Amino acid sequence: MTLQALPILLRGQPLAGGRLPAVCAPLVARTRDALVQEAAAVAALRPDLLEWRADFFSALADTAEVLAAAHAVRQAAGGIPVLFTRRSQREGGQPIALDEPGVLALYEAVAASGTVDAMDFEMGNEAAHVAQVRALTRRHGLALVLSFHDFQRTPADAELDARFAQAQRLEADVAKVAVMPQSMDDVHRLLGATLRASTALPIPVVSMAMGGLGAVTRLAGGAFGSALTFAVGSAPSAPGQIPIADVRGTLAVLQRATSG
Amino acid sequence: MTLQALPILLRGQPLAGGRLPAVCAPLVARTRDALVQEAAAVAALRPDLLEWRADFFSALADTAEVLAAAHAVRQAAGGIPVLFTRRSQREGGQPIALDEPGVLALYEAVAASGTVDAMDFEMGNEAAHVAQVRALTRRHGLALVLSFHDFQRTPADAELDARFAQAQRLEADVAKVAVMPQSMDDVHRLLGATLRASTALPIPVVSMAMGGLGAVTRLAGGAFGSALTFAVGSAPSAPGQIPIADVRGTLAVLQRATSG
Repeated sequence: MTLQALPILLRGQPLAGGRLPAVCAPLVARTRDALVQEAAAVAALRPDLLEWRADFFSALADTAEVLAAAHAVRQAAGGIPVLFTRRSQREGGQPIALDEPGVLALYEAVAASGTVDAMDFEMGNEAAHVAQVRALTRRHGLALVLSFHDFQRTPADAELDARFAQAQRLEADVAKVAVMPQSMDDVHRLLGATLRASTALPIPVVSMAMGGLGAVTRLAGGAFGSALTFAVGSAPSAPGQIPIADVRGTLAVLQRATSG
Repeated sequence: MTLQALPILLRGQPLAGGRLPAVCAPLVARTRDALVQEAAAVAALRPDLLEWRADFFSALADTAEVLAAAHAVRQAAGGIPVLFTRRSQREGGQPIALDEPGVLALYEAVAASGTVDAMDFEMGNEAAHVAQVRALTRRHGLALVLSFHDFQRTPADAELDARFAQAQRLEADVAKVAVMPQSMDDVHRLLGATLRASTALPIPVVSMAMGGLGAVTRLAGGAFGSALTFAVGSAPSAPGQIPIADVRGTLAVLQRATSG
């Protein structure tokens, strides 16, 4: 029996028409002009989703500038949905000039602007803040990705299982777990945890093992239940990401082989 | 740390120059003429190894005809090494008009002819016969693949581990295990067993989960220690095999991503 993983739903529609895994490309420009150029160039490669990694944006503390940039990205995206992400420095993001209340206010402003379709927030943030982001995304009809990243190691199986489950318990629409493998056994364990979570949980799950060692998970993770893979449009946002065209080509081979 | 899997050695040289996994394409024609055509057509696709599945050959009981065919395949292969395989019906092969003593005599004749570089024999055959094939391949300087196939299911982890170890105990040069998965958990377990065996054993290991469900192992198995993947040249010899060009393309993507 083929694994029946769940697609990510955005505004009630399955991402990528339900094709699994969907392909997401990050946007990492620092200025509004560069971001618009990057969004247009990456959108031309037709990923299923664009992730605006707003922690790379140098004017993040200027709400008006962020909203102007969000509108410009929306325009440049040409209909490709947008995931808004402030990756915290603790989980591999860039240093920013905003404190956490400032980040929450910004999430509210961006959500209210109608320029994005989903938001990512780390499940490891303060519980009250996670609840606040859950409430505001729900109020504005946006999907919420609750994420966990470990850029040093791959936690034990029980902790991996617990992270996927924690996201669901916190009412995420999507549970995301990204780890750094130290061995192929770590890569194998990440795929196993993904398979268990995608079978056990009522929400879509997303996972990857980062770096060169984990690159195979960016291509084969979908077969083990990951609903989304991150691929490079103009520049990677994490180690091990593979160019969109390469990912698309490999997924097409797998699709033919699996259905054949 | 990247997995350091062992390449298959043929006449002292690493197959595919040591690139892992190497790509093997089966030959399944029934007549000498068809076989020569198939060998030439498949060799043009540049697999690293050709497996002549001799159980498909209708004149298998005619030693002179088999040797003539073996010489013709050698010629058509254009330098690509050849693996000679009589797959037993019990393990998924075709019915043949030879009894086991006849098969052993044929293995000796083919080995002595200098037309092949390696031979495959099931480790589940009678112990005396396995020993005989081990002796004759060694005498003629050929690599011996000792194989196990289950076309119905994926054995438990302990049995998978035991099969790889059994091949090594029987002095195989290469241990091969092919299973039919009933679920993605079976596929995941096969990759785990491959990883353990490739780490623990002093010989190269080869594995695959068959069918559409297992197709991902034909692309990603190398990352988990499989030294060889079987891909379609003209016609598949087992369910789930993927065309050579698709396999090559995907392996190139993985190679770039892993070293990048």
